[in-house]
Parts: sequence; structure tokens; C-alpha cells
Amino acid sequence: MGKAYLEDLAPGQVFTSQARAVVGADAIKRFAGEFDPQPWHLDETIARSTFFKELIASGWHTTALTMQLIIQTLPLSQGIIGSGVDELRWPRPVRPGDTLRLHCEIIEVQESKLRPSHGTVRVRMTTLNQHDQPVQTMVANLLSFRRSGEAT
Amino acid sequence: MGKAYLEDLAPGQVFTSQARAVVGADAIKRFAGEFDPQPWHLDETIARSTFFKELIASGWHTTALTMQLIIQTLPLSQGIIGSGVDELRWPRPVRPGDTLRLHCEIIEVQESKLRPSHGTVRVRMTTLNQHDQPVQTMVANLLSFRRSGEAT
Repeated sequence: MGKAYLEDLAPGQVFTSQARAVVGADAIKRFAGEFDPQPWHLDETIARSTFFKELIASGWHTTALTMQLIIQTLPLSQGIIGSGVDELRWPRPVRPGDTLRLHCEIIEVQESKLRPSHGTVRVRMTTLNQHDQPVQTMVANLLSFRRSGEAT
Repeated sequence: MGKAYLEDLAPGQVFTSQARAVVGADAIKRFAGEFDPQPWHLDETIARSTFFKELIASGWHTTALTMQLIIQTLPLSQGIIGSGVDELRWPRPVRPGDTLRLHCEIIEVQESKLRPSHGTVRVRMTTLNQHDQPVQTMVANLLSFRRSGEAT
């Protein structure tokens, strides 16, 4: 599929990432050092005596890596413009050495009543590790443009 | 308030950040370059010809900066351990030079039926800019430990 406009999208369509995001221990610690400086994200040894018992990535690091994958996976005509996210969950941790991929399914396509050039697409997004286990799930609300509205 | 256990938390309690997060143009571009490389997050001039018409921070940058503030604001006994987030919204953009602060309100406290040592706290979190305008809202589901469960 080339660039997708609102008219091209329908519930049930699936997009899966070609790209993979590799998560290294250094990247986990660097992200956490800046944004989420808690012991289970910063140091393997100290992490062992915490609730998680091992070094794991911040959930917000996982969302950021997922965004990297979304951009490469969903061919929306004007890019990924999100108004919000529902039901964001982290069912299991992301560990150093994990390789992430993305599975997206369109679950709703809605034209805007106020702006004829726009619509909203709801997309269920599942971030999977190399064992095909979900590490993150969410429903993203994305702006989508109508082909007919683009020239105006 | 010192460290807060499940028994100390109740709906209606409010926590506000002393800390502020300052968002610079360089940080916006650096975060976007790694995780959300779209033109409205990368370059002031190019951003002018996009939907947003200006350089703005990635929504995932705002969540990450908010996490920084959460850690400094919510005194949960064993840190901030989130199982998920509902109703995440970005009602207006974060711009270079913005200064963010955080307002948290406990909306629900629930003991775990399975694990007597734990419970869940639902917290409505609003990230505000220097004009007291919300730039992000969400409801976070956080793990909270019972005081009585800690020694076991």
C-alpha cells in the first residue's frame, strides 16, 4: 500500500512492521537516567533487589520505541498525528537484548463532522518481543486526511 | 507527606510538583530524532509548512518528561510502578521554551484480592505549561504496597 488516506482505511486492516527495534542495556539506562531514574531501570545489580528483580526498560521507553516502529509501519498520508491513546498496558517487561516489532489493526474509521478534510482512525497496536509475546498494547487515536480534502 | 503506603492514600488527595521540566528546542529535536522523526518535531522552518505550523515536542517526549515529574511528585513507598494508562490525551502542543509542572489527584484506591501486600491506585495526572494550560492528561494505574505487607 502506498500512502493511505481516510478513504483507504477500514476496520480489520492489519499493518505489521518490517522494522525491528533492538533494545540494549545502555539505551535502557540512558533513557531512564533522563526520564525515569528508578533503580530497576538503571543498574543490573541494584535491580536484583527490587520488585522487578532484573533490569527492565521504562514503559515510556517502550512507548517511544513503539513510536519509531509506528512511523515505519502505518502509511498514513500526512504522517502519524495522534490525539491520544486509550488502554495503554505493559503486560510484561522489555529486557536488554529484546527485539521489538509492531502489529497494528484498524478498529474504527470515523469522518469528522466538523472538518470535512479530516477523520479519526482508531488503531489497536501491539508491540511484541522476539518470542512473539506482547510487551505493550494500546489503542491509538490518529488523525487521517481525506484524499478529497488534501488539495484544499 | 513522607513515603505513602496504600493505607495512606484516598480519593481526592492532590499532589503537585515542586519541580518543573523545561523543554528546549534542542531536546525536542534530539528526542524526535531518536524516536519520532517527523518534520514538525525536527526543524523550525520545515515545521511551518506542516499541519502544526511550528516546532512542537513529540507527545511521547511529553509523557517522558511527565514521568520525570511523577517520580518527584508522588511519594509512593516503593517508587512508581505503573501497570498501564487510560485516556492519555495531548490537548495542546508543547513548544520550545515551555516549562511543565504536574498536578495529580488520587481517584481510586483498590486493595488486591489476590495479593494482600499490594493494591492499585488510579491517579488523574495533568501536565500543565507555564500558562496553566493542560498539555497532557491521563489516568495512571499504579501499584501501591500496603504498610503491613512490606515486612513479609
